[in-house]
Amino acid sequence: MVKVAFKMARGRIVELVLLIVIDLWTVNSFQLHNPLTRLGLDASKFRPNAARKQASSSIVMKHPAKVAVIGSGAVGLYYGGRLLEAGHDVTFLARRDLERLKKNGLRIKSVDGDIKFDRVKAVGDVSQIGEVDWILLSVKSYALEACKDLVKGCMGPNTRVLAVINGFGIESCLGSDFPHEKIFGGMAFTCINRESDGEVNHLKYGAITFGHYKDDKEELAKVVELFEGSKVQITTSECLLFSRWEKLCWNIPFNGIAVAMGGITTDIIVQDPDLRLLARNVMEDVVKVGNEDLKASNISPEYRLNEETIAAMFKRTDNMGPYRPSTMIDLVEGKQMEVEYMFGNPLERAKALQMSCGYMETVISMIKGIQRIRNL
Amino acid sequence: MVKVAFKMARGRIVELVLLIVIDLWTVNSFQLHNPLTRLGLDASKFRPNAARKQASSSIVMKHPAKVAVIGSGAVGLYYGGRLLEAGHDVTFLARRDLERLKKNGLRIKSVDGDIKFDRVKAVGDVSQIGEVDWILLSVKSYALEACKDLVKGCMGPNTRVLAVINGFGIESCLGSDFPHEKIFGGMAFTCINRESDGEVNHLKYGAITFGHYKDDKEELAKVVELFEGSKVQITTSECLLFSRWEKLCWNIPFNGIAVAMGGITTDIIVQDPDLRLLARNVMEDVVKVGNEDLKASNISPEYRLNEETIAAMFKRTDNMGPYRPSTMIDLVEGKQMEVEYMFGNPLERAKALQMSCGYMETVISMIKGIQRIRNL
Repeated sequence: MVKVAFKMARGRIVELVLLIVIDLWTVNSFQLHNPLTRLGLDASKFRPNAARKQASSSIVMKHPAKVAVIGSGAVGLYYGGRLLEAGHDVTFLARRDLERLKKNGLRIKSVDGDIKFDRVKAVGDVSQIGEVDWILLSVKSYALEACKDLVKGCMGPNTRVLAVINGFGIESCLGSDFPHEKIFGGMAFTCINRESDGEVNHLKYGAITFGHYKDDKEELAKVVELFEGSKVQITTSECLLFSRWEKLCWNIPFNGIAVAMGGITTDIIVQDPDLRLLARNVMEDVVKVGNEDLKASNISPEYRLNEETIAAMFKRTDNMGPYRPSTMIDLVEGKQMEVEYMFGNPLERAKALQMSCGYMETVISMIKGIQRIRNL
Repeated sequence: MVKVAFKMARGRIVELVLLIVIDLWTVNSFQLHNPLTRLGLDASKFRPNAARKQASSSIVMKHPAKVAVIGSGAVGLYYGGRLLEAGHDVTFLARRDLERLKKNGLRIKSVDGDIKFDRVKAVGDVSQIGEVDWILLSVKSYALEACKDLVKGCMGPNTRVLAVINGFGIESCLGSDFPHEKIFGGMAFTCINRESDGEVNHLKYGAITFGHYKDDKEELAKVVELFEGSKVQITTSECLLFSRWEKLCWNIPFNGIAVAMGGITTDIIVQDPDLRLLARNVMEDVVKVGNEDLKASNISPEYRLNEETIAAMFKRTDNMGPYRPSTMIDLVEGKQMEVEYMFGNPLERAKALQMSCGYMETVISMIKGIQRIRNL
């Protein structure tokens, strides 16, 4: 029990340090709490204040990797840009941004330092990329199945796939076509928006938690290596399924209520007493279902969602201001919403586990209704 | 069990006959199923087709009652108008409609025959009414507490109060100030709208179920007597608490989801598979809580909500078309919504009974949030 409590407490502190009290970081506290330390890596290299002081060009890359970014939306452009900045050989597979990228290069405004490359590799056809070391997969989840052919197009025997996509069942979807040991999941806690002129603006946060589909620690070290020297704040999870559910503890109540109520920002949810309680009730449903799934999946009991998970989510959201969750942006902009992986699959899992989760189910039913009514 | 099943089946048939297959009525089927028959009254007098054939002036009123209508909105004007038409001495206590009523009289378009009186008694001050036999109380539920002084203004030792108001706890609120044996509840299943020019338009349905606060059958006969000869289709309930919950089985899911989702019509709810299932889940919560309340209130087990209640509610709503529930109209028109009695009190009762009702609670939390955010 002591071990569990410590693990949970540590996880929480890392999260808070990474996401909320960035400006208070010190080398010592970071090294003390950083899970990277456990992997035998030098955590000080990831200290963002130190990283910010370095010019991009001065970062020395020992082993540049060949990276394909599939899904060059805001998230793909931002994290791909950070990998490029860190010295990797990055190619963006782009559609609507192809001409812009070719003509203007990559320009991203970011709270962690702007990204500016006059020339980047951008292609419209996956055959122009060829086999790569890493695929950064950052498509919307509703395009996951359809993008498998693109993944195959630059997949070789040693290619690893890192899916930075929200939702539940992302890795198992990829796992039905690709070797399980090559699949990684990334859960980004970040606020990155597209401006109306198409420019990417990284507003706040930016950390990613990485996990490996089969929780292989040696493989996990590879993704840490990839981001080594970049300005991306990373943390690793020894249990991807746990981290997926942890992320859903935020997404289902906050993306969910924001959409179900027709497009409201998260500050309204946390500040209204009834909506705050509702968010908590929905989150408790996610905790309940998630823990049952972790148990059914024979995950060690030290990986369970708990009261501290909930407290951390609310603390983070309380500091977020009038944030517009991605699905809510899609709703108000009349774009297709990510419903199946973020909401449908977790609910389906709950049903399969015969769990009652009325709060969560009500919110999800409304979202499905809205999606159908508005044809999003 | 046979008795229970028959009672339930009978209740359902009466409801369907009254509300949906009005045009198929025959004297025989009406007499067979009409609960009035049980009270020893001549049901044929209430046959609406027969009533429609009579000119208003030709209805002979044996014992005209003195009636005060407090709350002269659409519902009060309509049912007050029907009582006036039936020969009673009706005075409308009006505020915004006072001048119109004085100048133009009462004009109501109705599917059951228009109402037209060039002159009606309309006053702006309750002191101009004096003691009456009946008070038809049809204020919005949020004005219930505030209107008690108006009720007192025309209340004498023999005055009966008939509250045609949606919600839970209406009678107990009145019961804290007025004699319990004088309190009646009316649950109107009707579509009455106000046009933009203020004119009342009775579009569909119109039946009322009446109950007595203490379920006194002799008292119940008095309200039947009041409506005798009127064009209002009435049915009586031997258990008011049961009928209140029965009405909530419609109001909580349909008014609720219509409001929680920002103002949608009932046809959208029943036609979308996810929203239809949600409405059912919410209704099942109401059934569960209602039955627990009936049990806790020592109501005979023959009065319980069941699968037939649910089926009847959906059958009715399936035939309703693009109906706008009253609370949804208030929402889209930016008017104060009836939240406390229709949603807050039933949820509070559920909590007091330690019932879990996640579907219902989620919808209600959203409504409370919307009410606060939009200041309605």
